[in-house]
Amino acid sequence: MSLLVVGSVALDSVETPFGVAQDVLGGSANFFAAAASLFCNVQMVGVVGSDYPLADLDFLAQRGVDLAGVEQVEGESFRWTGVYSFDLNSRETKETRLGVFADFKPRIPEPFRDAEWVFLGNIHPDLQHDVLDQVRNPRFVAMDTMNFWINNPETRESLVRLLGRVDALMVNDTEARELTGDHNLLRAARWIHERGPSLVVVKKGEHGAIMYCRDFIFFAPGYPLEEVFDPTGAGDAFAGGFMGYLTRSGGLSGDDLRRAMVHGSALGSFAVEKFSIDRLRDLTSGEVSERVRAFRDLTAFDHLAYVPVPAT
Amino acid sequence: MSLLVVGSVALDSVETPFGVAQDVLGGSANFFAAAASLFCNVQMVGVVGSDYPLADLDFLAQRGVDLAGVEQVEGESFRWTGVYSFDLNSRETKETRLGVFADFKPRIPEPFRDAEWVFLGNIHPDLQHDVLDQVRNPRFVAMDTMNFWINNPETRESLVRLLGRVDALMVNDTEARELTGDHNLLRAARWIHERGPSLVVVKKGEHGAIMYCRDFIFFAPGYPLEEVFDPTGAGDAFAGGFMGYLTRSGGLSGDDLRRAMVHGSALGSFAVEKFSIDRLRDLTSGEVSERVRAFRDLTAFDHLAYVPVPAT
Repeated sequence: MSLLVVGSVALDSVETPFGVAQDVLGGSANFFAAAASLFCNVQMVGVVGSDYPLADLDFLAQRGVDLAGVEQVEGESFRWTGVYSFDLNSRETKETRLGVFADFKPRIPEPFRDAEWVFLGNIHPDLQHDVLDQVRNPRFVAMDTMNFWINNPETRESLVRLLGRVDALMVNDTEARELTGDHNLLRAARWIHERGPSLVVVKKGEHGAIMYCRDFIFFAPGYPLEEVFDPTGAGDAFAGGFMGYLTRSGGLSGDDLRRAMVHGSALGSFAVEKFSIDRLRDLTSGEVSERVRAFRDLTAFDHLAYVPVPAT
Repeated sequence: MSLLVVGSVALDSVETPFGVAQDVLGGSANFFAAAASLFCNVQMVGVVGSDYPLADLDFLAQRGVDLAGVEQVEGESFRWTGVYSFDLNSRETKETRLGVFADFKPRIPEPFRDAEWVFLGNIHPDLQHDVLDQVRNPRFVAMDTMNFWINNPETRESLVRLLGRVDALMVNDTEARELTGDHNLLRAARWIHERGPSLVVVKKGEHGAIMYCRDFIFFAPGYPLEEVFDPTGAGDAFAGGFMGYLTRSGGLSGDDLRRAMVHGSALGSFAVEKFSIDRLRDLTSGEVSERVRAFRDLTAFDHLAYVPVPAT
């Protein structure tokens, strides 16, 4: 019952209307592991440079994250610098320095190759293929990607081929539309289903997330927050909550998947309350349960109490 | 148990990526009444010109809509012409000809003045005041408005004063933000609560609708449709479903309000399936119940089945 994540381990510098953070923990694997480790053991694979403050990851290790797959090599760590607009709905990337991430070749440690649950963070689709070549018999594989890989014809071919090897695609709405060439998400999901994944999860930021299965659709709203502090990593925290919950529950029934969506949304909503992964550091299971209940109160209604009169 | 609506009765000309409609039934009162009349008797007040095809409203009368308040006067009817973008997310108004609507002074027929449930469609806030001066003792009043009245300092004063006389404000997200000067909808809702309405319903188009009560929040998603044919009138059909359901149920409990939100969303989702009010014409109660159940399936999950392990 363990969960493997392969992704970026970065240092982010972020400016939001609420403040500035410099060289703080970032990257998809960090956000994912910080969220998923509330639910299950996590095996993490990534690369950092000689400048990375590895001691800052100690709290992940204490929460059962196995960092044996995080390689440290000579050079500079992956750094991302971004500025958010006043309403946090758009952001501008000021600088991306790939550093050692440019030559990243994921090496899955032998004990990780039996992972049943696998999350392929947003990296070059060829590398995502490489990961799947190394794991033996995963039960459930989910992947993320981004417009950069979708819009380059060469990586796109690799990406579409990868769809045939995974169970779930988790992307944002723009990515789903760019990948499929269809503005309508229902048709976009069908396009993706036809290429492999039985599950398509489309993240829509403050507008929530929607899961398209072959036989049902589930929607989780964005949690109404009075202050969104820093949206960075919300999608990866969502994926961590989603996959962590599934791994912990051990099931893939419709009910499991619905609850996974809500746990993902809960973790995503916590992630944005502070800079970096700070809010996920001391998050308790009680707070998660409370928010899951709040999600229920947000959408639950008794649908059987009343049937409208027939039209005359 | 009757519901009074005051609003525009117009002729729309609409171009969408799927086709063109010329001089078809439109206006807030028409969409509202077509939706609400599935649930209860509706009393409609508005004005049309000598050119209006009143016979086209016969089907509303057959559904229990009392048209005694729809005045016909010499002149041209209110006409709106608009074109939607390929993704239906934005529209351009090509022409607005107010015609007889420019001099509209709502006169509430004597038998309508005892209405318990009242919906003030989007008209000049002074006229909305006039309507409230004429009704005797309404139990629940909801109002719509638009950016045009919000951003003009003179009408804005009247509008804010009106908030102190109504129970519910139903606007879209842009309007809520412009009215309150706050981008955050949770804070915007509180601003509105402080000025009167205990209920704030924010419509977000394809992203659903959210209801802020003083002690809880309820969210209804946009219904996933493969083809949205014509978004015109969706907000008014939503309001009609919402108010029609409340009138029919006779209650204002949290459960009633939640179900009203879902019935509103259901009616809004039907409205966009065809041009004008055409889809609402032959809509059956069975179809409404089925869609309400679909809304439930879209968001329902069992939140008690599993509590995550505590963080170590």
